[in-house]
Amino acid sequence: MVYVTRVEHFNAAHKLWNPAWSEEKNKEVFGKCANANFHGHNYELHVTVKGEVHPDTGFVFNAKTLGDIMKSKVVDIVDHCNLNIDVPFMEGKFTSAENFAIGIWNELVNEVEKNGAKMHCVKLIETQRIYVEYFGN
Amino acid sequence: MVYVTRVEHFNAAHKLWNPAWSEEKNKEVFGKCANANFHGHNYELHVTVKGEVHPDTGFVFNAKTLGDIMKSKVVDIVDHCNLNIDVPFMEGKFTSAENFAIGIWNELVNEVEKNGAKMHCVKLIETQRIYVEYFGN
Amino acid sequence: MVYVTRVEHFNAAHKLWNPAWSEEKNKEVFGKCANANFHGHNYELHVTVKGEVHPDTGFVFNAKTLGDIMKSKVVDIVDHCNLNIDVPFMEGKFTSAENFAIGIWNELVNEVEKNGAKMHCVKLIETQRIYVEYFGN
Amino acid sequence: MVYVTRVEHFNAAHKLWNPAWSEEKNKEVFGKCANANFHGHNYELHVTVKGEVHPDTGFVFNAKTLGDIMKSKVVDIVDHCNLNIDVPFMEGKFTSAENFAIGIWNELVNEVEKNGAKMHCVKLIETQRIYVEYFGN
Amino acid sequence: MVYVTRVEHFNAAHKLWNPAWSEEKNKEVFGKCANANFHGHNYELHVTVKGEVHPDTGFVFNAKTLGDIMKSKVVDIVDHCNLNIDVPFMEGKFTSAENFAIGIWNELVNEVEKNGAKMHCVKLIETQRIYVEYFGN
Amino acid sequence: MVYVTRVEHFNAAHKLWNPAWSEEKNKEVFGKCANANFHGHNYELHVTVKGEVHPDTGFVFNAKTLGDIMKSKVVDIVDHCNLNIDVPFMEGKFTSAENFAIGIWNELVNEVEKNGAKMHCVKLIETQRIYVEYFGN
Repeated sequence: MVYVTRVEHFNAAHKLWNPAWSEEKNKEVFGKCANANFHGHNYELHVTVKGEVHPDTGFVFNAKTLGDIMKSKVVDIVDHCNLNIDVPFMEGKFTSAENFAIGIWNELVNEVEKNGAKMHCVKLIETQRIYVEYFGN
Repeated sequence: MVYVTRVEHFNAAHKLWNPAWSEEKNKEVFGKCANANFHGHNYELHVTVKGEVHPDTGFVFNAKTLGDIMKSKVVDIVDHCNLNIDVPFMEGKFTSAENFAIGIWNELVNEVEKNGAKMHCVKLIETQRIYVEYFGN
Repeated sequence: MVYVTRVEHFNAAHKLWNPAWSEEKNKEVFGKCANANFHGHNYELHVTVKGEVHPDTGFVFNAKTLGDIMKSKVVDIVDHCNLNIDVPFMEGKFTSAENFAIGIWNELVNEVEKNGAKMHCVKLIETQRIYVEYFGN
Repeated sequence: MVYVTRVEHFNAAHKLWNPAWSEEKNKEVFGKCANANFHGHNYELHVTVKGEVHPDTGFVFNAKTLGDIMKSKVVDIVDHCNLNIDVPFMEGKFTSAENFAIGIWNELVNEVEKNGAKMHCVKLIETQRIYVEYFGN
Repeated sequence: MVYVTRVEHFNAAHKLWNPAWSEEKNKEVFGKCANANFHGHNYELHVTVKGEVHPDTGFVFNAKTLGDIMKSKVVDIVDHCNLNIDVPFMEGKFTSAENFAIGIWNELVNEVEKNGAKMHCVKLIETQRIYVEYFGN
Repeated sequence: MVYVTRVEHFNAAHKLWNPAWSEEKNKEVFGKCANANFHGHNYELHVTVKGEVHPDTGFVFNAKTLGDIMKSKVVDIVDHCNLNIDVPFMEGKFTSAENFAIGIWNELVNEVEKNGAKMHCVKLIETQRIYVEYFGN
């Protein structure tokens, strides 16, 4: 069993806001992340798959194929977008890094696994000081 | 003469849009950067000052003071904001990295130079693949 | 279950020295790290917590709160200090990265866990070429 | 139990090519990596060992010793070489990152474990966008 | 006047070898870089152009256009290639980073300057420890 | 004319302290950097030389030679040392990054220039947020 990770980048706007709360409560919990007109990030996305090495290629999973899946299922949908407005798979969810990583996992898992490997981890780096990891459950 | 650079970070949303142009023309020139609902970046800001080493301190410019000026004049104004809406010093300007670097220079130069050094460069890293530098003219 | 990591930085001096050994033996085992007058590092500290996503916030753990705990319990105690002299929680211990990571875990675990998540990992990067990870046992 | 990682670097040429396949099939599967005259990488190698902290040193494993083992067993053999031609431990294998990581593990495991720790992981970073991890089975 | 830099990456094999010299002399001067079967690098290429900010766009030079020129004129020619064999613009030259940076400048300068800015610098990062810069003369 | 840069690393302890001042004044100006028992850094040193490309090698300056000079003249003297106590070329000087960069220039310039290139810049990165550059006057 070997683990293979592909890294892709995208830039997006978002804000953190709970509509059930007052502005005061939002600012208290989310701080500057609650600013009404959005802020944004250069997100770095690491997707790790695992499996046996295939004897014909030396690959667990063709990294180019993994990049293509990440682009078509995630990067093309979220790059240069507003996570609170433009992204169908985040509709109705708080756009925290945690929820976003779970959303990305769900977009990718079927396409990856029908290419013959197991999804292992979605790691989403929001800033140089905050990142989250999701392993599927 | 020694050059001293201080690095600060902030996160902001923006879009590139020329209101004198059609949507078509905006998309042709600015591509995804013209998306209506904004996108965003983790900006990295390098400010370089230059001067002689002061014999009492070994400093050209106290890096903590430089950081404090960068924070009060720029980072506190732009962090977790929307450059197209929330930032007085960018009002009426396209929020390209070029214009933003010039705007930052203008916010900083007086405060830096009255602390006794010359401003040398504002370097603004928008993504891992695009950065701009402005030297004041 | 999602894993959230917060990164903080600090600068400290230390040396590696076993007082039960001769100078010769110390130099043989610890090399330059045994130099009498100390050396130092820009430490990078990653603290990872894990838990369920809270439905009111989309957070497992507020990253700002995690940063505040790391600062008050660790960074404020060790930043710009000498690990062999100035840090109560390292008293009487060799200041290896291994021992330091365990010490940091012990300083943080109660405060993190009473905020409702499980501590998962302390990762301490001593140089670009050496890092250690501790998972609590 | 603490995990200690040492990082080393080397530069090597390679190509991906299955001699049982046509050129067309090789280009289809391996893309540009099948170019006949080789390409190359700045590889970054992370080796992680784990064990108890030794009471005389505060070390799980002397990082200098770990670096020396990595150099004598791997870096000196592969640095500035062609993985398809010059490296005995890769003879007859596709030089994918996956196979290379397994090969490196096998070169290191005995020497590391007779120095008193358990091998935990070989992480091999081939480019800023592709890395693999192998845990020994 | 603002300076705009675009960064692209590619992977290539090369070796340093002076055919007028003995093998001994080549090894003495070029060390491991003279190994017969090539080694390789993940090159990072920074191209900086300079000019006035255009009032209709806020751009000195559209960074996407700059990236497209870098790709069509350089990256597509050298990526996953052997600099000593496959690259027309390096034919008959030693493939040192210095010569390679000059070669890249010459490939780019006309196309950049007919798009309305001045070429300022080609910076070529060969490894984390060696980079070269060329300013056109 | 091409510019060639070599990067080396070292770890050192230091403190900022003006013995002509009270403790209070030292703390006011130097902040935590004045802590009595020292702190430390992972310094990153970039030395840039410039010259014409030599027709026999394609080199302006052999990067390995440059690294060897940096090691023998600077890194071996300062690595794992205390800049305030152990380093002859810093004796009697405040160990600010500015003074340290000037001191490093002076240690290197003769040896570099008798190898046939001009010294251009010493860049010293003290932390991820502070660096200085010195060009020799």
